[in-house]
Amino acid sequence: MRIVVLTGGIGGAKFLVGVRAHARAIGAEVTAVVNVGDDVRMHGLQICPDLDSVMYTLGGAHDPERGWGRVGETWVVKQELAAYGVEPSWFGLGDKDTATHLVRTQMLTAGYPLSQVTAALCERWKPGLTMLPATDDRLETHVVVDVEGERKAIHFQEWWVRYRGDLPTHRFVFVGADAAKPAPGVIDAIAGADVVLLAPSNPVVSIAPILAVEPIREAIATGRAPVVGVSPIIGTSPVRGMADKCLATLGVEVSAAGVGGLYAARRDNGLLDGWLVDTSDAGAEVPGVPTRAVPLWMSSEEATAHMVADALALAGVA
Amino acid sequence: MRIVVLTGGIGGAKFLVGVRAHARAIGAEVTAVVNVGDDVRMHGLQICPDLDSVMYTLGGAHDPERGWGRVGETWVVKQELAAYGVEPSWFGLGDKDTATHLVRTQMLTAGYPLSQVTAALCERWKPGLTMLPATDDRLETHVVVDVEGERKAIHFQEWWVRYRGDLPTHRFVFVGADAAKPAPGVIDAIAGADVVLLAPSNPVVSIAPILAVEPIREAIATGRAPVVGVSPIIGTSPVRGMADKCLATLGVEVSAAGVGGLYAARRDNGLLDGWLVDTSDAGAEVPGVPTRAVPLWMSSEEATAHMVADALALAGVA
Repeated sequence: MRIVVLTGGIGGAKFLVGVRAHARAIGAEVTAVVNVGDDVRMHGLQICPDLDSVMYTLGGAHDPERGWGRVGETWVVKQELAAYGVEPSWFGLGDKDTATHLVRTQMLTAGYPLSQVTAALCERWKPGLTMLPATDDRLETHVVVDVEGERKAIHFQEWWVRYRGDLPTHRFVFVGADAAKPAPGVIDAIAGADVVLLAPSNPVVSIAPILAVEPIREAIATGRAPVVGVSPIIGTSPVRGMADKCLATLGVEVSAAGVGGLYAARRDNGLLDGWLVDTSDAGAEVPGVPTRAVPLWMSSEEATAHMVADALALAGVA
Repeated sequence: MRIVVLTGGIGGAKFLVGVRAHARAIGAEVTAVVNVGDDVRMHGLQICPDLDSVMYTLGGAHDPERGWGRVGETWVVKQELAAYGVEPSWFGLGDKDTATHLVRTQMLTAGYPLSQVTAALCERWKPGLTMLPATDDRLETHVVVDVEGERKAIHFQEWWVRYRGDLPTHRFVFVGADAAKPAPGVIDAIAGADVVLLAPSNPVVSIAPILAVEPIREAIATGRAPVVGVSPIIGTSPVRGMADKCLATLGVEVSAAGVGGLYAARRDNGLLDGWLVDTSDAGAEVPGVPTRAVPLWMSSEEATAHMVADALALAGVA
């Protein structure tokens, strides 16, 4: 059994812990295709928040309280940068994180593609599955907003971290997506997959940037593997993060049905062969998509692994 | 009164504290021309050990116990880099230091010359004098050594920090010195100086790389300002550091007279108009150079300021 998961950062990382657990139980191989739209260069460092969240979480080194970054993190570098008065000062650059970014940036500068850099970093973290960035090319999510009456495009990190999404927001732009090629291994993984899962990540800024790489969307939409998505919305709230603000920008209802409709049925030029929603959303309907309601709170590795088993069952591969 | 000081890192920084104190007392302006031969790029960061030692020391932020780096330094980044297994692991990269290197590297990458970067960093540290790198161009001290039977050139930092100079050592090479231009302000400072002081820094790897920038040596040697050097050797030992190992490589006697002879009298195509030695070296003679013996232990700011007053007196400008 070969499982491909499209995923963002923190929520997706938590989901992957369950995927890994279930995959071990049934002897399956897992490839995670990770969003790079959040990636940003700051203070000369190439920062990949989603890749790092997945890597740290699967490596058991993430901070479960704060959600992002490393457990036992310290903040000397950040404080010193602030003392120098250099911007941006709103970004959470931990000392442990800084070392990761230094290794990554130096390898990128030396000419290694992000996928190889990620593989090198994973030699330390041993995530227990194959982690691939969606693309080795530049693909950055920017957000068209009004700031003090002026319309401009800011980097997603600025929108997310600095402004907490609290700006008049018009749209999301995936800069570089048109020219971006799938990272080596991504298309092969999809072509060879027995099932493709969409993690309960933010559909607008975590999953959509991956699908904005057209050959990836194409490979999934036309591939033989059934595609099952897991709703990131329970009731009217995101499981975590700010998917509600992102969905509002697109005019999509903040509900399991709303997100399912965004991905849409394969027969409607969408992706879904199945849509997993929480038991509390048992009535949610997505035209043309078989839906199943199961507990979606990722309260433990076991609970999450059970969700994954449910997703595979819905896909007809378990 | 305008004073120019050629200086290296830690010992020179301590000397500059005394220069600054004396200059404040007599209303003089000070320009420090700082060695860049120790500079090195590690983990993608441009590191300038001597500029940083001077900046931190004059800014009151250095570690007086360890000698180099920041007081209250932490080592998370270094430990993390080691955990990733990336080399070099022998270099002391502190977390506070890392922030300095990040700011510097990003400004250099953006196209600012090192002299402007240094000025920007000094806005925080307020050293109380003008700090200029000897050059904005690449100038690195490499050392020709035998390592495990093989002759090769290694960066000075590797020789100094990794091997503690404990290798068969043949010579020092100032890579880039031929093409290096003096940093903006250096020649003007020398031309406008009332006196040029050679700090009691390592003559071979701190002062020599500055003088290897030919226009700087030329401006000093042919300038109107008297040149007084302060011996870095007391008795047969360096005041600090490993000048003894460096001098031995050149076949120069490890003594005040030996170093004075290395700089040589101006009349002998050298630089010196005066040579300050320690009271214990009262008999030291450098052909053609007036010598004065005074206490040279930089035991306090006052003691060091007194040395500076003695140097100015020997130069005939006090």
